[in-house]
Amino acid sequence: MATIPVTPYSLGVCYYPEQWDRSRWTNDLNAMRDLGLSYVRIGEFAWSHLEPAPGEYQFGWLQEVLDLAAERGLSVVLGTPTATPPKWLVDWMPDMLAIDEDGRPKMFGSRRHYCFSHTGYRGVAARIVEKLAEAFGQHPAIAAWQTDNEYGCHGTILSYSDAARISFRKWLQDKYQTVENLNQAWGNVFWSMEYQSFDEIELPNLTVTQPNPAHSLDFRRFSSDQVKSFNREQVEIIRRLSPRRTILHNFMGEFLAFDHFDVAGDLDAASWDSYPLGALSLLDLPESHKRKFLRSGDPDFPAFHHDLYRTCGRGRWWVMEQQPGPVNWAPYNPSPHPGMVRLWTHEAFAHGAEVVSYFRWRQAPFAQEQMHHGINRPDGSPDVATDEIRATVREIRTISESDHAKHGITRVAAVRSAGGSKAAPVGLIFDYQAAWTLAIQPNRESFDYFTLALSFYRSARRLGLDVDILPQTANLDGYKVLLVPSLPILRPNLVASLKSFRGPVVIGPRTGSKTPDFRIPSQLPPGLLQELFPMRVLRAESLPDFAPIPVSWRGVNYQCRHWMEQIETSATPWIASTDGDAIAFTHEAFTYLATVPEQSLVDAMVEDIVSRTDVPFMLLPDGLRTRVHGDLRYFFNYGPTKVSLPVPKEAGFLIGGPELPVAGVAIIQL
Amino acid sequence: MATIPVTPYSLGVCYYPEQWDRSRWTNDLNAMRDLGLSYVRIGEFAWSHLEPAPGEYQFGWLQEVLDLAAERGLSVVLGTPTATPPKWLVDWMPDMLAIDEDGRPKMFGSRRHYCFSHTGYRGVAARIVEKLAEAFGQHPAIAAWQTDNEYGCHGTILSYSDAARISFRKWLQDKYQTVENLNQAWGNVFWSMEYQSFDEIELPNLTVTQPNPAHSLDFRRFSSDQVKSFNREQVEIIRRLSPRRTILHNFMGEFLAFDHFDVAGDLDAASWDSYPLGALSLLDLPESHKRKFLRSGDPDFPAFHHDLYRTCGRGRWWVMEQQPGPVNWAPYNPSPHPGMVRLWTHEAFAHGAEVVSYFRWRQAPFAQEQMHHGINRPDGSPDVATDEIRATVREIRTISESDHAKHGITRVAAVRSAGGSKAAPVGLIFDYQAAWTLAIQPNRESFDYFTLALSFYRSARRLGLDVDILPQTANLDGYKVLLVPSLPILRPNLVASLKSFRGPVVIGPRTGSKTPDFRIPSQLPPGLLQELFPMRVLRAESLPDFAPIPVSWRGVNYQCRHWMEQIETSATPWIASTDGDAIAFTHEAFTYLATVPEQSLVDAMVEDIVSRTDVPFMLLPDGLRTRVHGDLRYFFNYGPTKVSLPVPKEAGFLIGGPELPVAGVAIIQL
Amino acid sequence: MATIPVTPYSLGVCYYPEQWDRSRWTNDLNAMRDLGLSYVRIGEFAWSHLEPAPGEYQFGWLQEVLDLAAERGLSVVLGTPTATPPKWLVDWMPDMLAIDEDGRPKMFGSRRHYCFSHTGYRGVAARIVEKLAEAFGQHPAIAAWQTDNEYGCHGTILSYSDAARISFRKWLQDKYQTVENLNQAWGNVFWSMEYQSFDEIELPNLTVTQPNPAHSLDFRRFSSDQVKSFNREQVEIIRRLSPRRTILHNFMGEFLAFDHFDVAGDLDAASWDSYPLGALSLLDLPESHKRKFLRSGDPDFPAFHHDLYRTCGRGRWWVMEQQPGPVNWAPYNPSPHPGMVRLWTHEAFAHGAEVVSYFRWRQAPFAQEQMHHGINRPDGSPDVATDEIRATVREIRTISESDHAKHGITRVAAVRSAGGSKAAPVGLIFDYQAAWTLAIQPNRESFDYFTLALSFYRSARRLGLDVDILPQTANLDGYKVLLVPSLPILRPNLVASLKSFRGPVVIGPRTGSKTPDFRIPSQLPPGLLQELFPMRVLRAESLPDFAPIPVSWRGVNYQCRHWMEQIETSATPWIASTDGDAIAFTHEAFTYLATVPEQSLVDAMVEDIVSRTDVPFMLLPDGLRTRVHGDLRYFFNYGPTKVSLPVPKEAGFLIGGPELPVAGVAIIQL
Repeated sequence: MATIPVTPYSLGVCYYPEQWDRSRWTNDLNAMRDLGLSYVRIGEFAWSHLEPAPGEYQFGWLQEVLDLAAERGLSVVLGTPTATPPKWLVDWMPDMLAIDEDGRPKMFGSRRHYCFSHTGYRGVAARIVEKLAEAFGQHPAIAAWQTDNEYGCHGTILSYSDAARISFRKWLQDKYQTVENLNQAWGNVFWSMEYQSFDEIELPNLTVTQPNPAHSLDFRRFSSDQVKSFNREQVEIIRRLSPRRTILHNFMGEFLAFDHFDVAGDLDAASWDSYPLGALSLLDLPESHKRKFLRSGDPDFPAFHHDLYRTCGRGRWWVMEQQPGPVNWAPYNPSPHPGMVRLWTHEAFAHGAEVVSYFRWRQAPFAQEQMHHGINRPDGSPDVATDEIRATVREIRTISESDHAKHGITRVAAVRSAGGSKAAPVGLIFDYQAAWTLAIQPNRESFDYFTLALSFYRSARRLGLDVDILPQTANLDGYKVLLVPSLPILRPNLVASLKSFRGPVVIGPRTGSKTPDFRIPSQLPPGLLQELFPMRVLRAESLPDFAPIPVSWRGVNYQCRHWMEQIETSATPWIASTDGDAIAFTHEAFTYLATVPEQSLVDAMVEDIVSRTDVPFMLLPDGLRTRVHGDLRYFFNYGPTKVSLPVPKEAGFLIGGPELPVAGVAIIQL
Repeated sequence: MATIPVTPYSLGVCYYPEQWDRSRWTNDLNAMRDLGLSYVRIGEFAWSHLEPAPGEYQFGWLQEVLDLAAERGLSVVLGTPTATPPKWLVDWMPDMLAIDEDGRPKMFGSRRHYCFSHTGYRGVAARIVEKLAEAFGQHPAIAAWQTDNEYGCHGTILSYSDAARISFRKWLQDKYQTVENLNQAWGNVFWSMEYQSFDEIELPNLTVTQPNPAHSLDFRRFSSDQVKSFNREQVEIIRRLSPRRTILHNFMGEFLAFDHFDVAGDLDAASWDSYPLGALSLLDLPESHKRKFLRSGDPDFPAFHHDLYRTCGRGRWWVMEQQPGPVNWAPYNPSPHPGMVRLWTHEAFAHGAEVVSYFRWRQAPFAQEQMHHGINRPDGSPDVATDEIRATVREIRTISESDHAKHGITRVAAVRSAGGSKAAPVGLIFDYQAAWTLAIQPNRESFDYFTLALSFYRSARRLGLDVDILPQTANLDGYKVLLVPSLPILRPNLVASLKSFRGPVVIGPRTGSKTPDFRIPSQLPPGLLQELFPMRVLRAESLPDFAPIPVSWRGVNYQCRHWMEQIETSATPWIASTDGDAIAFTHEAFTYLATVPEQSLVDAMVEDIVSRTDVPFMLLPDGLRTRVHGDLRYFFNYGPTKVSLPVPKEAGFLIGGPELPVAGVAIIQL
Repeated sequence: MATIPVTPYSLGVCYYPEQWDRSRWTNDLNAMRDLGLSYVRIGEFAWSHLEPAPGEYQFGWLQEVLDLAAERGLSVVLGTPTATPPKWLVDWMPDMLAIDEDGRPKMFGSRRHYCFSHTGYRGVAARIVEKLAEAFGQHPAIAAWQTDNEYGCHGTILSYSDAARISFRKWLQDKYQTVENLNQAWGNVFWSMEYQSFDEIELPNLTVTQPNPAHSLDFRRFSSDQVKSFNREQVEIIRRLSPRRTILHNFMGEFLAFDHFDVAGDLDAASWDSYPLGALSLLDLPESHKRKFLRSGDPDFPAFHHDLYRTCGRGRWWVMEQQPGPVNWAPYNPSPHPGMVRLWTHEAFAHGAEVVSYFRWRQAPFAQEQMHHGINRPDGSPDVATDEIRATVREIRTISESDHAKHGITRVAAVRSAGGSKAAPVGLIFDYQAAWTLAIQPNRESFDYFTLALSFYRSARRLGLDVDILPQTANLDGYKVLLVPSLPILRPNLVASLKSFRGPVVIGPRTGSKTPDFRIPSQLPPGLLQELFPMRVLRAESLPDFAPIPVSWRGVNYQCRHWMEQIETSATPWIASTDGDAIAFTHEAFTYLATVPEQSLVDAMVEDIVSRTDVPFMLLPDGLRTRVHGDLRYFFNYGPTKVSLPVPKEAGFLIGGPELPVAGVAIIQL
């Protein structure tokens, strides 16, 4: 069943009619249309306005807004309001609240105050979704639905409630069938943790010291599954009552607490909320990096997620919320450099976005997010982003009218069924279980999976290469280079894919170091990887930040950190520490890293590896990034100074030119 | 009704007869008198000794102490013991305990273990106050009463108890009348936070993410009001049963959790507990500053509070507890530089104190404060402070006998009714709601109001200027320069006062940025200030400490931090960052700062502004401070080296001379 | 009643037959024997395998393992499994869980989830011990018993449970007889903390601000006594049912929460678990030190504990768990430098250990400690330590066969009854109450007793001197030099011993500063020490790390930190700060420190003091350590470079030679 087609390069905005006097609605919608926006997302926090008391529905205002939108040709994304259950609902079933790791209830008064495992809440949530879908599912304005809002925001995936405990026991019983199987799988004989019944099993919090890591990993898998089933329940209702509409969820950046590939599998398309400046402030990277990119954001963070969610959506994805100015929620909230809103928008399209939607139409002058800027100021005057959006609209028109755009669209369409953009020469395997495994057992104060994955991604992007972010289950045909930052629990199907892969594969430390039951493989790490790489990790040590491993390679000094393996192998040592211990080995097309190299060493290694293939690449200046979409090559300058593009002067510039100012965008027709 | 007159320049001490064998009382009181002390504070922690079991009073010992004091001509300040409810009372009504933000009870075992909202506790507290006032209200020794002890110490203003929840709902109902009004004021439509009844409203703790800032602000106002009504209940009892005695409370330094102007409004005079070294250790200032003033304390912190509490007491104020040696409660507890006890004492009088009372007569050899030094050591031998106090007594006598002293007193008397010392050329507007507002919504990891206010205060003191600390409601007549560090919620009456103010006004960032309902003003910030200053804040960003804003002004490099506003204005840009963005604007006599300048830049700006007035000033060396009281000019050397005073050599020195050693005091007759 | 004799220089290993298929048992035990091991510890975490359901015992597997061990001549240490109560037991009596300081239960899911005060749990724990002792007490394989496992691990001594509260009240009643006595001792009149009944007394947690330090200290004493009585209950059962076996407990390094001298008093011998690399990571020492000794561990930490537990065991002690590779539980977990396992083993014997037992035979591939390396890898292949152990076995044989060894053994035997090795010239007084007192009242952010004690110990070891770690009650005869790092609560018997002591005594700050009731002595600090040293501490200040006290002594610059006392004394000032304040005084043979000198100054002072005695010493290069055992002198190189030994070339080397490589061991026959 085909969905309502999406016009490529569309822009949208998030709008909260319930927060404004109805006298402003018409003007607002007219102004959106006049600015060149096509999509309006509404409704996702409006539960108390839609159902002010149990079973008492008040949908008239929403009907009116939808009618007004339809009259103006605006397409609406309707959000289900389940991220903000009203107070009457919490008072009705107080144990619907999630419980935090310390055993405290997460109380009403903000949002996301529900436990995914509470069946009572799930019933009431399904009811409001059904009522909305019944009322508006066929409304001509409705082009898409968004389920809930930002699953996992504010750390809301793991709940230690009674409801979660009951559901977890059931989930374990389904998985293991007998408690003996579970005891065996987890190794519960260790420390007398053997259970006699599934009903004895607690959640893995408040233990005297660390709980069994297998216990923790199963709890993470269970919690991810709870998100999946919660989401699917809404999807099924909407699909039944509002056919042909695109069903999305707005995911977030660097949210690792549930498996996004898995949850997105039930959606028609993925979307995510892109807040580059807030995101930068939270990354585990040095202050010098954060200072350099203070007002542009990390040059690879948005792209990483564009590429991730393109895969999650099997080629179809949106930016549902795009930062248009300072936000309110980060440790510090700078203003984007002029031009960045335009840059971020173009970059999303360069990575294949269908829609980029700004958050929000008008800055709210009240409540929690009053310092979160929007397209318009609280008084209704246009904020800085407006001019940039207007310019972007014009440029999009130029692009859309050129031939290549159609090629681009065709390609995107082709990609959908394949689970990744075939154009990209580089694939990067990203895995939520890897994140959980390394977080549960970092073996030192921290061992951050996302930081490692981003460093691998960055090394390819620095070479001007397009990257697809892929799950372990992906078809690897067509990729030229494969990056595997770390994959403690290797799946047999990936091993099989790697066996037939043609091209270099760079594999990070700890890959293959655990079985699915969170055990050390009987053949020692790297476990299943031994089918491809003749090695055994004899010993692994973790190191403090103050004792890095010095490496000198080709005349340059580097440092490796966190982790170091002693490896027995017939493979060839490639790079060694100054103490003479090999930190990287090669075997056939595989490179294995025994440690975590700093960014510049990852860069140098990946450059060396790529330079030995036939993949064309260019070494980009710091902060410059590029991407090919259809027949267009885009350039984006995230850096703090202007740069000269590494292209011939006679290149055909559709937008921009060979000198790219700070926050500049250039587009070349290939 | 006039109170018992206070002899100016009086000294006192805090004494705990219940902690010592009665055989020592006579000697102790004799020794106090012989040292030159006139006031003795007693009783404020003695509840279990006064009422060892419910309704069983044991007042004999106190009667005896009062009689002994009266015989020796010592005046007594009797403290109500409500800061230390006995264990039998907690066991009687266990829910009288406050609850912390994490939901844990704040248990018996130290002090201040009560919730201001618990009506049961308030009843019993009123009963012991009444019993004491009945028994001793007319005793000739009693010159004053102290209510409770250090409201707010150990973070005890905000309580998340059931009692607080019930009272808060009632308070909200009184304020808003209907829940619709409340929903509207708070903007509860945002995130479906709308209530249908006041009984649905929770306290703003344990929420998933930040609660509505309007909710938090009202909870802060409510909590401040609870202190006010708790205190007033005691004041009314005492006033009825012990007429003509001065009723005080001993406030603390940098306690911002309740409105001191408001609570002090019910008292006859204010007092505060001055611990300069402990206070310095807790300030949000650099280590270099803390090292320089390690043994003298911040050179402006005591003065700031002297000036604050002088206003709170409408001209009448005391230092109730003066640090006489190392304390026990700070992160580190150095010994004061020799001479500092004398300096601190004179400085209090220079700012108009009626009484300076030391804490405590003799160091307790047991319990929590056994490492808190006193005037005498635990073995009864005189500690270091004794000699300094003796010298001070002699010097006070010299001062008191000189003519100018009377002028000083006259002036103080004149000031009482006016709410501030008319002599001061500089007024600084200080506002507790500003502190709450900026703490609730700092917009970065922290934005410390007190640090900002202190930096403004310091800039005037560095110029040798006297300052009055004023509430928004103050009469501004007579001031020459006005400093407004930050005032997010501007009151209309201040705007009116500013309109008629003659002289420069320096206004810090975020002023006028919120309405009383914690909303962005409809005309955009600075809201009501726009009536005086033609500007709109189009955008505000917050910055990390590692990315300050560089400013070069008149050949000197500075940094601004934390906050930066983009301003649309017809006013004149005054100072710009090196990037060219104006950080200060002037319009008529008003200067508005768009950022938080470092101290040296505040200093330079205020110096420039003052130099354009006819206010005489002198640029003081680092660590030197001065104040005029009556016809006397005092100098105090807080710095680590001796300094030459910026006065003619022929100046008439009542005390000291033109060279001031470390911790030195000089007094010149004007 | 003599115990089964222990062969000197024995090696052992920790083994978990219940974690492996029984098919491996025979091979494992054969391999242990073949490697040269004599002891196997088993059983201490196997409760769920021994009693899978209440009262249902399953001892067959253990019987089989013991029979197999006996057949192979292996001696078994049987652990009581009470550190890991099974889930059925927790579900049976849920309130057996300890409660943490925040009031949260410490839940099932790891280990040590019991409260020492829960009488129900103690009954069931006694029952499993009795059943095991009945079944195996006379088994020929059983040479020793270990009670429980690592009392105090994961911070499990202090419990704030109802059971603890009830027991604490009883303990207080036993101690004070009347509540008036308690009120008097604690000084409860301060802050109205007076109790009318023992039943009113709470545990000292969750108070508004710090509880009464006397309350805290009694709670610490009580908690230590609970460990003692819990342990004694097991000892008495075992002693009755398994006579002549050595009863031990495996203590840990730097565990200060209970009195080890006291608990060990009920055992036949002490043992401890030595993890030098993990321990180093947790010490309060600079990063430069941690970097230098990253892979060898602090050069004095193991020795300190060897000397401590030798005293605890009245001369008889073991290393029950010796680190053989990286561990899993520290903030970072490096690999030991090759040779360190051998070095650590020899060093233990050099300090008089009877047995050194490695943890563990084979690395577990599952559960919490899967990253804790063992002698063998999870796949059964020998890990790095195997070769080092094999070499050590050979060397031990060489040593054992030489004459001096017997002398050594004789000496050890002689020592047992005396409570310390008489050979050592230096005694260091170590005191658990001192640790508690300084932790309860550090008077600055921290004042770490262990760090101070280690610095004193290190200064003697740097001079090549053997040290005995002694309790206050020790007989001091025979020692030449005495070190007293700090001893706030001095016992009269130590004062008496010091009076007759011949030789220098170095006494650290705060000694004698408190009475047993946690009060300042009536004669002022140093209290009872005044009988030996004519001084009074008039004032004490604590200092921040950023304001150290500079000292220049004999041309070298040093810093002192944390603490500084003003002292009135007729003693001789010895060393002064650059400000002229004496930081050390001498009186007769006593030296008193008024501050905490940095390591290099402690070193210089102790060197100077020792050099004035007839005690021979040698100044060791950084990282080199030595010890005499019997007629052997051992050298150990902990440092990062090779060193030349300070011995004549013609010295008779039993092992090694005059140049000691990194991790090298040399043994000279004296």
